[in-house]
Amino acid sequence: MTRKLLMHVGPVTIDYDVLVAGLRGDTGFTSQEFIDAMSFSLKYLRRLMGADETYQPFIIPGGGTSAMESVASVLRRGDKVLVVSNGVFGDRWKAIFNRYPVAVDIIKANPGEYVKPEEVEEKVSEEKYTLVAMTHVETSTGVREPIQEVTKRIRDKVDLIAVDGVSSVGAETVKAKDYQVDIYLTASQKAIGVPPGAGLLVLSERAVSRLSDESVAGYYLNLKNWIDVMRNLEEGKGSYFATLPVHLIFMLSKAFELMEKEGLENRIKRHEKVAKGIRAGIESMGLDIVAKRPEAYSNTVTGVLLKKANAGDVLREVISEGLELAPGVHPALAGKYFRIGHMGWVNPNDVITTIAVLERVLKRLGEPVNVGEGVRAVQLTYS
Amino acid sequence: MTRKLLMHVGPVTIDYDVLVAGLRGDTGFTSQEFIDAMSFSLKYLRRLMGADETYQPFIIPGGGTSAMESVASVLRRGDKVLVVSNGVFGDRWKAIFNRYPVAVDIIKANPGEYVKPEEVEEKVSEEKYTLVAMTHVETSTGVREPIQEVTKRIRDKVDLIAVDGVSSVGAETVKAKDYQVDIYLTASQKAIGVPPGAGLLVLSERAVSRLSDESVAGYYLNLKNWIDVMRNLEEGKGSYFATLPVHLIFMLSKAFELMEKEGLENRIKRHEKVAKGIRAGIESMGLDIVAKRPEAYSNTVTGVLLKKANAGDVLREVISEGLELAPGVHPALAGKYFRIGHMGWVNPNDVITTIAVLERVLKRLGEPVNVGEGVRAVQLTYS
Amino acid sequence: MTRKLLMHVGPVTIDYDVLVAGLRGDTGFTSQEFIDAMSFSLKYLRRLMGADETYQPFIIPGGGTSAMESVASVLRRGDKVLVVSNGVFGDRWKAIFNRYPVAVDIIKANPGEYVKPEEVEEKVSEEKYTLVAMTHVETSTGVREPIQEVTKRIRDKVDLIAVDGVSSVGAETVKAKDYQVDIYLTASQKAIGVPPGAGLLVLSERAVSRLSDESVAGYYLNLKNWIDVMRNLEEGKGSYFATLPVHLIFMLSKAFELMEKEGLENRIKRHEKVAKGIRAGIESMGLDIVAKRPEAYSNTVTGVLLKKANAGDVLREVISEGLELAPGVHPALAGKYFRIGHMGWVNPNDVITTIAVLERVLKRLGEPVNVGEGVRAVQLTYS
Amino acid sequence: MTRKLLMHVGPVTIDYDVLVAGLRGDTGFTSQEFIDAMSFSLKYLRRLMGADETYQPFIIPGGGTSAMESVASVLRRGDKVLVVSNGVFGDRWKAIFNRYPVAVDIIKANPGEYVKPEEVEEKVSEEKYTLVAMTHVETSTGVREPIQEVTKRIRDKVDLIAVDGVSSVGAETVKAKDYQVDIYLTASQKAIGVPPGAGLLVLSERAVSRLSDESVAGYYLNLKNWIDVMRNLEEGKGSYFATLPVHLIFMLSKAFELMEKEGLENRIKRHEKVAKGIRAGIESMGLDIVAKRPEAYSNTVTGVLLKKANAGDVLREVISEGLELAPGVHPALAGKYFRIGHMGWVNPNDVITTIAVLERVLKRLGEPVNVGEGVRAVQLTYS
Repeated sequence: MTRKLLMHVGPVTIDYDVLVAGLRGDTGFTSQEFIDAMSFSLKYLRRLMGADETYQPFIIPGGGTSAMESVASVLRRGDKVLVVSNGVFGDRWKAIFNRYPVAVDIIKANPGEYVKPEEVEEKVSEEKYTLVAMTHVETSTGVREPIQEVTKRIRDKVDLIAVDGVSSVGAETVKAKDYQVDIYLTASQKAIGVPPGAGLLVLSERAVSRLSDESVAGYYLNLKNWIDVMRNLEEGKGSYFATLPVHLIFMLSKAFELMEKEGLENRIKRHEKVAKGIRAGIESMGLDIVAKRPEAYSNTVTGVLLKKANAGDVLREVISEGLELAPGVHPALAGKYFRIGHMGWVNPNDVITTIAVLERVLKRLGEPVNVGEGVRAVQLTYS
Repeated sequence: MTRKLLMHVGPVTIDYDVLVAGLRGDTGFTSQEFIDAMSFSLKYLRRLMGADETYQPFIIPGGGTSAMESVASVLRRGDKVLVVSNGVFGDRWKAIFNRYPVAVDIIKANPGEYVKPEEVEEKVSEEKYTLVAMTHVETSTGVREPIQEVTKRIRDKVDLIAVDGVSSVGAETVKAKDYQVDIYLTASQKAIGVPPGAGLLVLSERAVSRLSDESVAGYYLNLKNWIDVMRNLEEGKGSYFATLPVHLIFMLSKAFELMEKEGLENRIKRHEKVAKGIRAGIESMGLDIVAKRPEAYSNTVTGVLLKKANAGDVLREVISEGLELAPGVHPALAGKYFRIGHMGWVNPNDVITTIAVLERVLKRLGEPVNVGEGVRAVQLTYS
Repeated sequence: MTRKLLMHVGPVTIDYDVLVAGLRGDTGFTSQEFIDAMSFSLKYLRRLMGADETYQPFIIPGGGTSAMESVASVLRRGDKVLVVSNGVFGDRWKAIFNRYPVAVDIIKANPGEYVKPEEVEEKVSEEKYTLVAMTHVETSTGVREPIQEVTKRIRDKVDLIAVDGVSSVGAETVKAKDYQVDIYLTASQKAIGVPPGAGLLVLSERAVSRLSDESVAGYYLNLKNWIDVMRNLEEGKGSYFATLPVHLIFMLSKAFELMEKEGLENRIKRHEKVAKGIRAGIESMGLDIVAKRPEAYSNTVTGVLLKKANAGDVLREVISEGLELAPGVHPALAGKYFRIGHMGWVNPNDVITTIAVLERVLKRLGEPVNVGEGVRAVQLTYS
Repeated sequence: MTRKLLMHVGPVTIDYDVLVAGLRGDTGFTSQEFIDAMSFSLKYLRRLMGADETYQPFIIPGGGTSAMESVASVLRRGDKVLVVSNGVFGDRWKAIFNRYPVAVDIIKANPGEYVKPEEVEEKVSEEKYTLVAMTHVETSTGVREPIQEVTKRIRDKVDLIAVDGVSSVGAETVKAKDYQVDIYLTASQKAIGVPPGAGLLVLSERAVSRLSDESVAGYYLNLKNWIDVMRNLEEGKGSYFATLPVHLIFMLSKAFELMEKEGLENRIKRHEKVAKGIRAGIESMGLDIVAKRPEAYSNTVTGVLLKKANAGDVLREVISEGLELAPGVHPALAGKYFRIGHMGWVNPNDVITTIAVLERVLKRLGEPVNVGEGVRAVQLTYS
């Protein structure tokens, strides 16, 4: 039996219509089909990010981390960066910038909390930063940062704002233009629901104007090397810098086509509905969620705290029941929680299955849960 | 009609058994299936590179260029690098290293030629280099560098030797250990015959010992950040630094399984046979090959020089006959040649088709070719 | 959103490993791969049916109905047939035999009931029948006939016994040899979990000895025309009478390979477990099952009686919740019930999803159900 | 290496776009997607057959032989049938009707010849036949019957005309309406280029009016049992008699969509072009074709006579060169010929490959062929 439900943080469950779109045995990077798929995908990416024509879209090989590192393309030696971190992937901004000749400050929240907008405002009022880098939804804890509020408070005080939307784009409200975010980025394998292999970004005009030979960036992840390729491909012209993930682009293009059909707002509402069901199930079972308060809840990731059972055992046992979940990775909570990813092509049926398997497995592992209460709560949520 | 023959330089024609191996809608990066596929692939990669247990294999997101840039992981501020360049991708070594605080010298060959081993020897005798970076088969011209002879002459005089085997690994004899090459690298979409999305490398102990926080490398392509992940996965343990291209790894693992079945030597012989047929067809048609002499011929790429026809027209016209070829990209020959990629899952049937279509299309476009002579020569080659 | 759960009576949810096994663009019926797949499938079919080497397996184009009609291959003009019918597909035996010059008697049960073994015994004691044709699980009602007990009572009194195992083989205990059944048949799209396209049968030596030019059978469904093909293919030799569904055979062979891995007994237990959960959910919701008594319950199909809601509305509404169920087809219960198919690659996660969707949809449609009670009962069943 | 060229008589090389259309793991026969695919396919089938709205299309499980047997649906006890046979599949008409209580006469041509229209005219002038059954292209020899001329001569003298278009529909000009053919039939795996699993027919009003309980037909292949299902499905309403090959219908529908895009006339011209190239290659190599004269040539099948080599050896050897051909099956020519199928998604590239492989293999096996002449002739044909 190979059927399984994957409620992970990426790759996630992928619709087969998306997967089979990559079954192209005879298509090169100079083929019209590929150029068309890229052109459509770049155009759709703007809409997905809530950007307009003034933004330049990029689809480059790699994933979330490489997309984050490509932000170095707008930095120059000696620039100052402020990182706003709610966990592992917030900290990653710092680890990345530390490899470059720029100064990095960081504000951190406790696990389950997010950095308050006023803290960011205070910090950027004290000191002039070239770039503030944030994380919309922190994948390690499932905590959501109120991006709109932060940007409102700091927009006038900093040069550039970059948001890691890896666990938000496609599932949360994202408005690059309205929030005046300069760089919004994500990866193919998260809420877009495509295999891993591409980082996706939009850059404002201000951000684009900073691409130059003087940037601290290297070569492959240097957006200056990619910008003409993106412009050409969007206009339907073949172009090459380094090989793009051709087959993945066909899948991405299919995913975007399906998104267009569903409607972006419907898609976000679907994620909201799924997330609500997951939380209702978990809480009614008697367990706590890592995100400390409702404003911190995200549509895509729910961290679940364990009272007695061992997280590793839980992950192993749910596999035997046809469910794959994600391990907890926040060092401060090591072994005490696991994560449920609920993004991409998820629906309420996945919720009931996840909660049902968890109820049974957790009980078996000695966790104090009331079997039947979680699934009943899911039902009431959806009735 | 969507059937087409893709004779490109990557992505190439991909066997459907390989493509469908990626049809996994429900498999996360912590799943046992993925871990097993990585473990097998890493082990097989050593054999593919002619490396032994003292070499550390890496499979990282990206492609050839990112694999090349990851070589910066072994360099420190102020190191001296010698680049041996036979064309566009040789020059790329220089462009990459120029983004880092290291000194770069370059020896270049004219298009169609390769840098003579004695020239390299002379250069490294004059000056001490930390790293010599070469290209086994130059994808832009199809010229092969005699790696074994070069390494024999320079091994004792330089610290590290890196070879870009992007258009050779899986199709040419590659013996990392015997040639004492420290870093041999390739990409998934070339002679391995998998979609683009991964760079593959092996590093000698000496190269591994240079990975450190002091290297000039950035973050994502810094092999120091990946080495534990590779070791853990090879040993069958889940591990994470940044998301690996899970679906691609299933395809890679399938390709390696098929290679194992075919036998690496048989695979190389098949590439030799295919390349021989291509050249016989092209020359009997009355056209010249970019590579200037037989020792420079490669098993994987053949550049074809045009006398009258326009290269762009040729590429467009062959598409209408169900054949996709690659444009020429060497600036010195702009518009005067095109490339035939013949790697991966190619066979003599692809050769006869390619030559037959070219004969007819070239004649139509006014190129002085004898229709029928190319295909006859292919037949005599294989009889 | 195209993800959906198919709980139908055939085709059913198909594992993607099975589906992709049919992705063969270049394989003819004389290829070794096809011959090997047929050989393995024929051999495995014997085991699946609880038959031994004395039985001849057949895999022929079509489905359940064509497999039933092929039973005419053992009948001659004037033969007498007794049909034991528990519903639509029992009656189909009669409709089929009525097209041939044989006499047909029928014993029928009320919907939800099965014909008692003693009734069959009585009937065959009164009159001499060449063939008794029964249905193991009646797909229209989900009622199971106690085949073993019937055969024990009648074996000595009739020439031949044929059992339609369309909704049982692969999910219920089937022992052709032990029960001394002469013809056991099924179709690819039911509990075997393969797309529709093939009928599968095993024939005892006695049944095989009746194949002759004198039979009443036509041409295509005449097993005499197929027997040599089956014997040759099983022995690994190419053979032709009419074109077999080549691609489907690759899927069938894959399904059999997965069955072998799972173990036939485990597979039956899994179906039992799933069926138990479905019934617990339905009954706890407050609904009645068509099958009137526990001995009549099957592992594969559950008919659900509605009190107020319209069956057509239920089917339409569950689709909008990502669940596809089967309509009721028994004329005596028209519009008053629907069917849940639970065969093939089903698991408890499918059960909870099915019950959860039904609870919500039925409530919405005015059916008196207690939302939350069905899913809780499923959980308790599995805890 | 699993890449291969399949030049067989069915299944043939199948475009991957067609194959992947069947990758539906969760679609039942009552789903709207399936109903839509059937509706479109039935409508397109009329156009494919050159029929109009007065014709009733049928798509039923099975293949060519079952479609032929379903013609019994229009026959009654005592009817007289005339079979016009050019080989194995012409004879099959007789073998089928012999299983029914109807009288059968046959006119036969020698292998490589076709029955002259005047012979048929003469026969039907002598005696009154209910049905004349012919074969458009005889798959066993590749001989084409001039259907239009025959029907012109006999139309007024017989009740019904049925044409087996198994190796013609989709590749030859077929005009059911213009030729006043009552039943034109084919199978999915031939020139339509879909896996085997369905028979396709159109019936004139006259033919439909003969469907009745009085027909000699059995049950499953009795078109009376299917007609309402076809009408309902065409109108977009779910309907059931016996399970249709759901997944195959999705592929069929995709193939029809691709045909519509290509244009039926273009498709026929493509087949003509391919057939012409095959014959040019074979004849220039120095071999004879089974069809005795140009008027007998078909667009879909070419039988090739051998002088010295053994046909079985040829088939085995071409496999080792990545080419799969079909065995000869006409008993009068046993072992002396093989067949090249050239239907479906074939193109000139398949021609050159087929001829190239044959040249080399035949020479190796001692057949007197001039290597290089066949491929040169193909090139000249296409230049």
